[in-house]
Parts: sequence; structure tokens; C-alpha cells
Amino acid sequence: MTLVRSDVMPTIKDVAKRANVSVATVSRVINNTGYVNIETRHLVEKAIEELGYVPNELARSLFRKKSKIIGLIVPHISTYFFGELIEAIEDAVTQEGYKLMIFNSKDDAELEKKYLNVLNQYNIDGLILTANTRSAKSYLKLNIPILTIDHIIDSTVPSITSDNVRGGELAARKLIENGAKKIIHFRGPSDLITVVDRARGFYQVVDEHNIEAYSFDLDFKNPDINDIEMFIKKHPDVDGIFCSSDIIALYAISALKKLGYNIPEDVQVIGFDNIELSGVLVPKLTTIAQPIDDFGKVSMKIIKTLLQKKELEEVHQVLPVNLIERDTTKKA
Amino acid sequence: MTLVRSDVMPTIKDVAKRANVSVATVSRVINNTGYVNIETRHLVEKAIEELGYVPNELARSLFRKKSKIIGLIVPHISTYFFGELIEAIEDAVTQEGYKLMIFNSKDDAELEKKYLNVLNQYNIDGLILTANTRSAKSYLKLNIPILTIDHIIDSTVPSITSDNVRGGELAARKLIENGAKKIIHFRGPSDLITVVDRARGFYQVVDEHNIEAYSFDLDFKNPDINDIEMFIKKHPDVDGIFCSSDIIALYAISALKKLGYNIPEDVQVIGFDNIELSGVLVPKLTTIAQPIDDFGKVSMKIIKTLLQKKELEEVHQVLPVNLIERDTTKKA
Repeated sequence: MTLVRSDVMPTIKDVAKRANVSVATVSRVINNTGYVNIETRHLVEKAIEELGYVPNELARSLFRKKSKIIGLIVPHISTYFFGELIEAIEDAVTQEGYKLMIFNSKDDAELEKKYLNVLNQYNIDGLILTANTRSAKSYLKLNIPILTIDHIIDSTVPSITSDNVRGGELAARKLIENGAKKIIHFRGPSDLITVVDRARGFYQVVDEHNIEAYSFDLDFKNPDINDIEMFIKKHPDVDGIFCSSDIIALYAISALKKLGYNIPEDVQVIGFDNIELSGVLVPKLTTIAQPIDDFGKVSMKIIKTLLQKKELEEVHQVLPVNLIERDTTKKA
Repeated sequence: MTLVRSDVMPTIKDVAKRANVSVATVSRVINNTGYVNIETRHLVEKAIEELGYVPNELARSLFRKKSKIIGLIVPHISTYFFGELIEAIEDAVTQEGYKLMIFNSKDDAELEKKYLNVLNQYNIDGLILTANTRSAKSYLKLNIPILTIDHIIDSTVPSITSDNVRGGELAARKLIENGAKKIIHFRGPSDLITVVDRARGFYQVVDEHNIEAYSFDLDFKNPDINDIEMFIKKHPDVDGIFCSSDIIALYAISALKKLGYNIPEDVQVIGFDNIELSGVLVPKLTTIAQPIDDFGKVSMKIIKTLLQKKELEEVHQVLPVNLIERDTTKKA
């Protein structure tokens, strides 16, 4: 690759001279500010094109096809876990001198197609997909580093996931060790790999110990507390509940209180995620902690490795989870 | 205003004829698709301008350098209230055929400067600022419709705010009506206008009734539950608490429970915002509801009015709040 020295590149002055206008006018055209007569604008644009002039830092980065922007596609923003995840990713991205542009997919294919255009036109340097999108394959065509979080779109596309199977195992083991004999598993929609893996780990241990267990599927974004209450009423002798998110666990605790159960004496509850609230609200929630900050750091590390065209040590990384014992499970 | 009859308006054929090109070429220029030689483009644009040709709605917006993108600057994403606000704005924006691009300011001037460049170069159509930013004045230079939420950067820049003063009044009045004699006001940082206004309304009513009241400032994003506990211990005979966010209220309730108070018998608590959790967790929180969905709808309505270069009926709109009575205040 040949390095283009700045002293041979045309400057804004060259453009102004060729178009026979002032530097200020060229600047107005480039930055699209203030009024410029349409004919003058055309003269300036023509001069820019003919000279191959590349304006300022940002435009130069465009010339190099680098924008220093990482795109992030999320399914929802108002979900508590995603809020924390987005901030963790943003911290890591800005720490490396990049900016983050966030796109909310809302599971809407039409919207994603529009975003795709934006990503394409703006020369986004890399893309992080935190949710399975309908347009996954189209994103690959962008020909930029792509990383998925919590799902795998292709064996060659790098991904990061928590060790969800292990999380399910840890939760089941803790409940059973503490004497639970009949466990309810409130989980998110079973088309999500995270939900399936948490359930898989959970049922492995439950089956191993021959423990009675029942699952109920809820919406991750808007779990319905009435469904939770109804399902508990159907199994009044429940003594353990494992939820595949902390928010679902907070809802389950509210339903249990309303029905007159004591926590953890009558029913023990374990959540998943370890969002900030889980350690603050009373009773403090026992939960499986996801490494939210590591999601940010590892994401950026992978994107940087890919940008440097280096090989990744691991294409699909699984990050460790751990059990945080608080007040919704019995003490040993 | 004169109504222009469609039969006297120039058509795309007139433009093609005048520019001496095909209709397809004019269409490519208007829709900014496919390759058009720069000189041909200029001929077409000139013909369009001279004839006063008005292409269909979408094409017209493209020609005028419209991106159909609204930028949104937020201070934080992981705050529960902001998560809900962002989704409400996004709903309204996409409903009108626009896309939303979200920028997290993090109160970082350097970052904001970079975003400013992005906004500029990408021809963002309009901008919503949900937080006071260090670069407020620079955003004005973008020369696009700007709207602020929850603060005012200039008397001429449109804004939307909840009726925060009234919210504070409603909370104080309810606590006092229900017999509170010593009230603590846990609030956010007192440099935020929302916080100041809520406190103002609150103290107006408190002073009117000669009620003892104490304020304590907390961080909105990360209120420290230890500070809350300490301050309650300092005023053990407190019987009413007004918090300037629901999250602070959830923290206060946890601190009260830990200290052995019954809610609402010993201490009544009122929050602010009406986030989803406030109506679900036990005890259900009495709170001042902000019209989160209206923030989205009204924002987009204002931006659209500004894009059409029409005058706003009100430059600074104040949206109504209301008291939602739940289980943390006594029943009448």
C-alpha cells in the first residue's frame, strides 16, 4: 500500500482557487451550513471532485474508509439488562477512541434494512449484534468486523456468550442443596439460545437428582406478573424458583409476597444477570452473575483484533458466570 | 396562502425536457440512486429549481439533503427512566417514517464534539436533546430543528418538560393530607432543573403548612443506599418521604424495611416518574406519573412542525403530571 503524503494532497485553498470562491464558501459547502447559491455550490463540488480533495479529519477518515464508529444493534433499550450491557460496551468502545452508534432493531426487518443503509453509507468500522436479527446475513455483506453477543449467526462469525448452561446448573444445584423438592423455572421465550441453554443446564441437574420441576415461558421485556401468580397457584407447594432474568425474579418475589409466602423460608428464589437493582432491593436477590463489564471489554478486543486483520484465538468465546448468594436463598 | 393546483404544476417530464435528459435520469437525481454524471446532475437540479418542480414527498426530502434520521442525545442509557423515554421517542419517530440515531453524551464534551461532526456530515434532519449538554450552543449551529427535553438552552429553542413544580406540590399535599408531620425529600443533583422544580413545588406546599422537611441530594444514576439509610437514621421520626425518582424511592423503601419501618403505616413514600417496575414490585409505589409516551409523540410533532417551517403554537411546552396512588401511601 502506498502512503499518500499530506503535502501532495490538495487543500481547501486549492479548491477555493479552482472554484474561484472564498475558503469560507468552500467550508460552507463541505459542512452544509449557511446559505450557498446553488450554482456556486455546484462549482465547489466540481472543483472538489476534479482535484480529489479530501476535507478535514472526519472526511479523511472516510477516505481511508474508517469512521472510528462502532455500530451496536440491540433488540430493546428499556430492558434493564440491555441498558447495563449497552453502557458497558460503550465504556469499552470510547476507551479505545471509538464512538458507539446505537440502533434499536425492535425485531423489525424493514427498520433493519434502513439501518443497514446507514451503516453502509457511514463506513462504520465494526458492528456488534446483541440480538438475533432478521437481517443477520445481510450484515455480513457489509464486509466489516462483526461480532455477535448471546447468539451465533454463522460458525465463522465471532461471538461472545455467557456460560448459560453452567448458570442453569449452578442455580439448580444451589436450590437442591438447600432442600428444594419442587422447583418452578420461569424463563424467557424458548426461541432464544440463552434461555434454552439456561434451561438445559438447569434440567440436567434437576433430572440427575430426580427433582420435580415445571417451566413457564414469559416475555423477557414485559413479563406478566399475573401469569407468574397463576402458575404459582397451580403449584402451591413450590419451594424453589429459578428465573432466567433478575426482572422476572423480582416479579416472582412480588407474586410470592402477595400470596403470603415467606422468602427464603417457604420458597427460595434465584435470578439471572445480576443487574444493579438485584443487590439493592429488599430482599436482596440471589442470582447468577453475568460478566457485563467483560462483555464490553472482550467485544472491543475482538473488534480491534479483526480490524488489525489478525486471527482470533477463539472464534466463539464463552465467558464464566458465578452464583451470588444473597437473601432469597437459605444460608448453608 | 395560495393553493397551487396540480394541473398547473410542472411534472417530472417538464424537468426532463428542460434539462434535455430522460425522465429516468431525473428520477435518479431526485432519488439519489444509480450513477449520474455530475454535470448532468447539475443540469437537472437547475431545471428543477427554475421550474419550481416539486417531486413526491420522499424524493423532495432527499433532494433537500434530508436523511430521514432524527438524532437523540441522552446522558445515560442504563437509567430506567431514560430507557423507557428512549423507547417512547423511538416509537413516535419510526411511526412517522424516520429513524432514530442515539448518542450517549456521558457528559463528555470531547465525545459530544465528535458526535456533532457525525450529525453534521450525516445530514441528520432533527435533533432531540434529553439532557443538558456542554455543547448545547454548538448544536444550534447545525441549523436543523432542535428540541430539548427537561431543560431549556435558549428561549428560542423549543422544549418539553413535565410539570415538575406541580408534581412536587401533588406529592407534598398527599403526604400532608395523610398526616405526615416530618418529611424527607430525597432528590437528584440540584443542578438539574427537573430536580429544582420538583423541590420548589414540594417546599411551597410544605412551607404553607408549616411542616418540618429535610432534603438530601443523591446521584440520579447511582443513588447510594447507605446515604439514604444514614439520613433516615438521622431523622428516625420521619413519617413521609418524597423522592425525585422511582428508583430512589425503591432504594428508600429497601432502607426503611431494613431499619424495621412499616410502609405506609410508619412512613409513607412517594416516587416520581412511574416507571414500569413501580406498579409491579411489592409494595406498589405511589408516584407522580410523567407522561412518557407523550414525550415521544409531542417531540416528533414539534420536529415535524419545524421541518415544515411552520410556527409552533407554544415554544416551551409543559406536559401534565398526575399522582398515582398505590400501596406506599395511606388510603383515604
